[in-house]
Parts: sequence; structure tokens; C-alpha cells
Amino acid sequence: MHSEFELIARHFTPATPGLGSGVTLGVGDDCALLAPAAGQRLAVSVDTSVLGIHFPPEAPPEAVGHRALAVSLSDLAAMGARARWCFMALALEESDDAWLEDFSRGFLALCEQAGVSLAGGDITRGQLAIGVTVMGEVPPESAICRSGGRPGDLLAVTGALGGGAGGLAAWQAGERDLAHPLLKRYLTPLPRLAAGQALAGLATAGLDISDGLLADLGHILEHSGGGAHLEPETLPLAEGLVEALGEEGARQAALTGGDDYELLVCLPPEQLEEARSRLATLSLPLTVVGRLTDTVGVSGVTTTRRTGWQHFHAVGQGGTP
Amino acid sequence: MHSEFELIARHFTPATPGLGSGVTLGVGDDCALLAPAAGQRLAVSVDTSVLGIHFPPEAPPEAVGHRALAVSLSDLAAMGARARWCFMALALEESDDAWLEDFSRGFLALCEQAGVSLAGGDITRGQLAIGVTVMGEVPPESAICRSGGRPGDLLAVTGALGGGAGGLAAWQAGERDLAHPLLKRYLTPLPRLAAGQALAGLATAGLDISDGLLADLGHILEHSGGGAHLEPETLPLAEGLVEALGEEGARQAALTGGDDYELLVCLPPEQLEEARSRLATLSLPLTVVGRLTDTVGVSGVTTTRRTGWQHFHAVGQGGTP
Repeated sequence: MHSEFELIARHFTPATPGLGSGVTLGVGDDCALLAPAAGQRLAVSVDTSVLGIHFPPEAPPEAVGHRALAVSLSDLAAMGARARWCFMALALEESDDAWLEDFSRGFLALCEQAGVSLAGGDITRGQLAIGVTVMGEVPPESAICRSGGRPGDLLAVTGALGGGAGGLAAWQAGERDLAHPLLKRYLTPLPRLAAGQALAGLATAGLDISDGLLADLGHILEHSGGGAHLEPETLPLAEGLVEALGEEGARQAALTGGDDYELLVCLPPEQLEEARSRLATLSLPLTVVGRLTDTVGVSGVTTTRRTGWQHFHAVGQGGTP
Repeated sequence: MHSEFELIARHFTPATPGLGSGVTLGVGDDCALLAPAAGQRLAVSVDTSVLGIHFPPEAPPEAVGHRALAVSLSDLAAMGARARWCFMALALEESDDAWLEDFSRGFLALCEQAGVSLAGGDITRGQLAIGVTVMGEVPPESAICRSGGRPGDLLAVTGALGGGAGGLAAWQAGERDLAHPLLKRYLTPLPRLAAGQALAGLATAGLDISDGLLADLGHILEHSGGGAHLEPETLPLAEGLVEALGEEGARQAALTGGDDYELLVCLPPEQLEEARSRLATLSLPLTVVGRLTDTVGVSGVTTTRRTGWQHFHAVGQGGTP
């Protein structure tokens, strides 16, 4: 058995951030010391991924590491923030070097890809859970919040939907090839950081789709007021989703499935072309799926069940998420 | 059963930070948006408290809430930082309103006392655990790190030692009166935030005593180099400790017991009077317990066992911590 210090040294200090990272003191002291850029808002989000709730018990540790960070970074993407630092609170049943090696590889690879420095954290004994705190920077005037959407704004989504639910279904059906397009969307989603920054200043409101399109649209309406009209036939469906779930199942997964980590934004119609052209440089489609209205409620969908994913409701549904 | 949203709204939104808190967007959006002060370093620490490891299963929830925040704030105190914001990641077996009400009361009372704003967090299902991220600010030149101590510096501790170990022993012996002086030190320690800020600029190095004096002194030597001479007979002992553990047990608890959350600092001798006079305004004693030397190792103690508290070593010792 190893001490917390040895575990951190062995698996996480290769991540010691370099010059230019804004980390002036990192892992190993009581606190990390960071140098935020002047004039920016600091965007901070905390998310915990728990074994058997947020990822399947037998999920590959590399994917678990990737995913735990990705879901937090997705919140920074939703605000239009530039990701800068992260902190990891890891609870482990026992110290398992092979598991930790794979886990940290997945976590650190996404750190590097996203340009974020792992600046600290802790390791404790307990049921396997990963708490991730991410910090980013965004100019005060261009942060994308849930409030701010106005009647007439277009509702647009990045990428494709339903991959999270489709990937979970594939996993539950025994699919284990991590290159499977749906499984990839479910286990190793890519936070839309560049897209969020590109949309900052154009979008009046927005968030990342983690609870499912309908539930997350509900969050926007709650903060922005008014209602929405959706055109479900326009929903961009993840690759392989119709083949896996059928036409109706695919549509339902795109509407109510969670864990997609695409962005849903409210855009004044006159900003659509600019937004699309910015995302085109990222090879990312932006699809209009409806618009905000001044009538409370959501029209255009046969079901307005905002099921989505709520942790305490999911008890006894026996699965992930 | 309630959703995560309802639980947060019910128990934690009274904490919605006000003007002047530096929180420009709080609980309820994808991220909190914070406005850090210009020219300061941001000090950040993450700590997780797990049921049965960091606190006894039957500990009063109000104390659990207080303690989970206190141990994180203690890291800010150790750096000499001013506490500003915190984030809470709470994992719960089930949603229990009575428990949450007591827990949040303890947590929020310490927020208020420490001048820190709860700016966000999440609640998930899982084994009871509380992950707390704290953020504070400190001028770049006066942050107290573990490195920087020099031979000849005095080793000084705030307050009194051994209360953490003594309180745990009292709890295990069945003591349940939360006003009991040792139990209070163990269950509801007070982070030495004001003391840390007062010592910033005077101390060459320092940290908070969470692993036990000897183990934490070891961390300083690791980062600062050199060795130390201790004078164990000078150790300030927590109220009631000798009565509870006997002379020798009390001395041992002060040397190697964990969870004291006092500060251990390295002070050039010429700074001692100024440091003492600053702490006197806080009614907090500062006791010299030894000095740094240029000889590797720790002299003056019959045992240099740096036991302290290491999570993965504690497995099977069947207790807390």
C-alpha cells in the first residue's frame, strides 16, 4: 500500500505545469497559487463522477479519467470560457497502480488536449468517485449564461445529439469496442471548449446538454423566461443512432437522453451566419432546432417530458446514468 | 425523493452571496463567475472528507459540515491567504432533509464566520463524502510556502496541540458533549485564517498541522532542506489533554497526533516579537518549539517516528481518522 503522497508523486506529478501555465506553486504545498489574467472573470465549476452512477463499474479506467474531466470542462465550454486549471479529488477503495496508471493517462491526456493544468487535488479512501474542479477565464461582457435569451432567438445545437444515450444502450448491450462511434460519444465525450469561446459574444444564452435537450432547454427557460418552439425533425442525430435505436428511439434519445455535452445556444437570427462560419473553422456543424417564443411552455414536441437525468430520481432505475 | 436542484435550492441557496462578495454569477448556472482582485495570487485547495475515515459515522451533521469546510480553510490559513470563495461537492446515500438541514447549518455558519461565499457545487448519490474547494487571495510576495525556511529560523506553533488526537480518543471513549474542550477541537476546529494573514510577510515558511507536528515538520524539511531541533517540553498542550491522556500520552499526541489545524511556521528570531504581538490581538499564543538547523534529521525527540495520518496506511486500523 502506498501513501497519498507516493500515489500523487507517481501518477500525477508528470503533470507539473510549466511556465506560462499561470501556476506559480503547484502540487505538494498546502495550496496551489495561480496567477489569473487581469480583467477577466474566473469561471469555476465542480462535478463529481461516482462509480456505478456516472460511469459503469467496468468502464475502462482511461475513459473514466477522460470523462470525469470532460464533463467539468463542458461547463466551462458552456460559459464560453478558456479552460486554464483543474483540481482533482479522487476517492479510491484501494490503491491500485495499474488502474491509477490508466486513469491518470486518460485524465492527463485531456488536460493536455484542452490546455488545462492539473494544479492540485487529493486522494482519499472511499467508494470510487472523482471530483473535478475546473477553472477558466472569460471576459465579463461575453460570458454565456442561462439567462439572457429573448423571444425570437434561434435555438441552435453544436454537433449531434443522442450519442450519450445511444452509447449507454450500446454498452449495456455488451458493446466494448471503444472505437464504436456511439460508445465513444458516451465514454469519452469531447468538451466543446473552442466552440464555446467562438460563440461567446454572439449567443444571448446557452448551456451544455448534460441532462438532455428538453431538460436543459427547461433550464434556459427558467432563467431567461418565455417559452420555446422545437422542430424535432431537425435534430442532428449522432452517427449510428438510427441504426442502433430506430427512427423513433433515436429522436427520443436526442430529445431526452443525457450526457451529450454538446452546446445549446440562443442566437439572434442575424448572428447565425457568423456563428456558423466560426464553427466551420472547427469543422463543427451548428443546427437550428427551434426558437424562443413569448408563450410559456415548449411546443412542437409530442412529449414535453423533461425527464433528463436527475441523480436522486434515478435511484432504482438500475443503470448508468 | 428530491432532485439535485430541489436539494440545492432548499438547503444551500440562502447562502447566495451578496454584493461585494466578488461572485457575479452563483449557484444555478453552468459555472460560477468570480471577480478576483487585481495583483493577487489565487490560493486554491481541495479536500475530501469521507464518512468513517475523516469523521465518525455518528458525528453530528452540523459538526460534519463545519469540519469539512474547516480543514480546507486551514490550507488557506497556512498560506496566509484571505478566504473568499468555496465550492462543495456532496455525495449522499439518500436525500435526508433533517440531516441536510443540520449539515448545511454547520457549513454555512462557518462560511459566514470566515467571510467566505459558497459559490457553487453539486450533489450526487454515493457514499457520504464532502469535497470542498476553497479559494483565497494572497499578495504574491507574502504567501507562506513550505519552502523558504532557513537554518536558525525558530519553529513556532499557534494555539495548542494534541486536541485533535485527544478529541478523537474522547469520542471513542463515548464522550458526546460537543462543548467538551477536546471534542470541540476534534469535531469543530477553527481554521487559523486571521493568524495566517498576520504571519504572512514574517514567516519564511509554514503549513497547517493536519498530519501531526512531526510529520508536518517533515514536509517543511523536505521543501526547505536542512534539519530541525525540537524541544518537546515546550509543546503547548490542548486544554484537558494531560487529564485525558496522561503526561506522556499528551506529549505524544502533540507530537504525532493529527487534525490539530494549528499553524507551524518558521520565523527569523528577529521577527518573533512582531509575530507574537500581531497574534496577541487575536488572543492567540505563539509558542517556540524548536528551530531549523543545518543538520539533516530531527533531534531532541526520543522518537522521530513521523507517523501522522496517511490515508492508505490507515486501512484496517479501524477507526477515525
